[in-house]
Amino acid sequence: MATTIVVAQGGGPTAVINQTMAGVVLEARRRYPDARVLGARFGVRGIVKADYVDLSDLPEDLIKAIAATPSSALGSTRDKPDAAYCERILKGLGEVGADAFVYIGGNDTAGTQQILSDAAAGRMTFVHAPKTIDNDLVENDHTPGFISAAEFVAGAFLSVDLDFRALPGIYAGIVMGRHAGFLTAAAAAWRLDDESGPHFVYLPERAFDPDRFVADLKEGMARHGRCIVAISEGISAPDGRSMVETLVPPERVERDAHGNVRLSGGDLGMAIERLIATGLPGARARVDTLGYMPRGNIATINRTDQKEAFAAGQAAIRALADGGGSIALKLEDGHTVMRTVPLSAVAAKTRHMPEDFIVPGENRLSQAGYDYLERLVPRQYEPVEPFV
Amino acid sequence: MATTIVVAQGGGPTAVINQTMAGVVLEARRRYPDARVLGARFGVRGIVKADYVDLSDLPEDLIKAIAATPSSALGSTRDKPDAAYCERILKGLGEVGADAFVYIGGNDTAGTQQILSDAAAGRMTFVHAPKTIDNDLVENDHTPGFISAAEFVAGAFLSVDLDFRALPGIYAGIVMGRHAGFLTAAAAAWRLDDESGPHFVYLPERAFDPDRFVADLKEGMARHGRCIVAISEGISAPDGRSMVETLVPPERVERDAHGNVRLSGGDLGMAIERLIATGLPGARARVDTLGYMPRGNIATINRTDQKEAFAAGQAAIRALADGGGSIALKLEDGHTVMRTVPLSAVAAKTRHMPEDFIVPGENRLSQAGYDYLERLVPRQYEPVEPFV
Repeated sequence: MATTIVVAQGGGPTAVINQTMAGVVLEARRRYPDARVLGARFGVRGIVKADYVDLSDLPEDLIKAIAATPSSALGSTRDKPDAAYCERILKGLGEVGADAFVYIGGNDTAGTQQILSDAAAGRMTFVHAPKTIDNDLVENDHTPGFISAAEFVAGAFLSVDLDFRALPGIYAGIVMGRHAGFLTAAAAAWRLDDESGPHFVYLPERAFDPDRFVADLKEGMARHGRCIVAISEGISAPDGRSMVETLVPPERVERDAHGNVRLSGGDLGMAIERLIATGLPGARARVDTLGYMPRGNIATINRTDQKEAFAAGQAAIRALADGGGSIALKLEDGHTVMRTVPLSAVAAKTRHMPEDFIVPGENRLSQAGYDYLERLVPRQYEPVEPFV
Repeated sequence: MATTIVVAQGGGPTAVINQTMAGVVLEARRRYPDARVLGARFGVRGIVKADYVDLSDLPEDLIKAIAATPSSALGSTRDKPDAAYCERILKGLGEVGADAFVYIGGNDTAGTQQILSDAAAGRMTFVHAPKTIDNDLVENDHTPGFISAAEFVAGAFLSVDLDFRALPGIYAGIVMGRHAGFLTAAAAAWRLDDESGPHFVYLPERAFDPDRFVADLKEGMARHGRCIVAISEGISAPDGRSMVETLVPPERVERDAHGNVRLSGGDLGMAIERLIATGLPGARARVDTLGYMPRGNIATINRTDQKEAFAAGQAAIRALADGGGSIALKLEDGHTVMRTVPLSAVAAKTRHMPEDFIVPGENRLSQAGYDYLERLVPRQYEPVEPFV
């Protein structure tokens, strides 16, 4: 029986990750009324530093207000603990008498939980609660945080498409996502009809071909008088290198401490601008980097996303009695349900867009892709087709 | 008495410019039940080409649905007519028997109306109805379209500030606005307290000093552990040149057909990234170009903005009986009221942020600046301070 439960938040914040924390806290109170719930500040760093917030006695209305606030209220970290770091975490958990640790995050976070679980050898229970706007966790139909971020992206591209009907030209919006194209694909979720933008989407799942990109833009301009495209930050060349590496002069490519190419800069945007300027000289064109706009935007928090994120936190506490694991959102009989899967099934794996979500040989979603988005991210508005 | 009224939309679309068109159409029906109302497609281009939509008999519920849709339903143009072009416009208006022309747009649009009005010498009546997310029309307390765009920017920066509390670093968001800083300043409208970002704003009204910018970032990092800044696309150097010209190598500066430096590219963002990388080496930093995101975003349409935009269209029709002019939103006794001012008072002039909205010698808003934003763009959400 749990007596001290530690909860932490890892990786990039989302609009609903605090819902999951709230689900953990309130379900823990219900199931284990005498237990302490400690929130570690800045993910596992807080455990190592013994830097906690005691969440046990917070008033329920405050917890619900925190739940409704985007970003990670406990702070977050991108630390990927190695074996030595994990020892320090286990030591820290031991020092506060923790018998359970719930870590809310993506596949890296699940990986940390698996290492800890293996090292702890049954001394305590570890649960991973899912969170990521990238929607790239295996075993999950979709992940908490995705729907809200997708709603931002869908609304932004619907709006930009209407804008470009009035003042025609080319628009490219660059959307977060290193390995999975779900969030970029969401740009097409709220198209009014086949004539609506985005007319093409460029996803990490397909090699990016600059010549084809220019040909696509020419086709879009010829067919619609405008061309709206969504481009993932993570698009890569046929040889597997990121497009940033192939489009940007080598001396300008930035890398992080792990040697990963930085995708977050404006370099890709500039490279895209140059491609357009060269391929369609004189065309009115605009490239925006949406960057952090979709991630935890307070204007586009989706109610279903909130409920599911809360339920994932509750499920994390229920999973303690069964020895822990990773909470997965499964689609069963048309409903999203919470199931527990082994940590090893999720840890450090990436779910990509299914092959059949993309039209073969084209930079467009298939009907299956649209169907998935329509189910998860139904259109919230009924704009009227303009007169032009 | 008006028998044929032509209405058109000019310049950049907004979230509420169709409200103004709806106000024109419905008030015209009320005042002049026998009049025809023709919508010119793509601004004055539609008049020259005799390309109209007859708005006279559209069902009222359809008009209201159009009003609720962002962007310019009639299409728009950036044409700035010269004397010869104006003659063609007058000829076009004459050919459809127009006795009134209502043109919805910014200061360029007002300028077109003034030229037309002078050339028409009383043959017909010209009204300018205000619209601009830049909020840069003289004679106006604020302009239709601004509040909705400002709400997007305010929510985006509130959200990013919460995000960067969880994962600290430097964030710079680049916001539209060539000459006036209102929309960039709106980034600070929803700050929770003095500790909240954006910690600095860089506006066209103040010369941008790269050394001071780096010093500001260092101060922000030292004081808050993170630093969030909003930068206008239109920031300029002390010599009056745009920062794009001074920060970007000359061969990379792009110009439009009029020789104006293109502000809309990613060049400024890249220059800002380089400034940060040089001034604060190793700091986690992200620069996003918000670009078109705020302009007509369907997720952040403000109700007050909608009502005022509609009222501006109604006022434009009322102004016909008085010989036309420019509709201005005035603040009287704490209320926004519609007044008619001469076209010459608004045409081709730019309203800047008042001096006293900015702290002298600093890149921060004054209390007067915050008060203005708080009055116009009240915070829509009550997020809770995180634990970190």
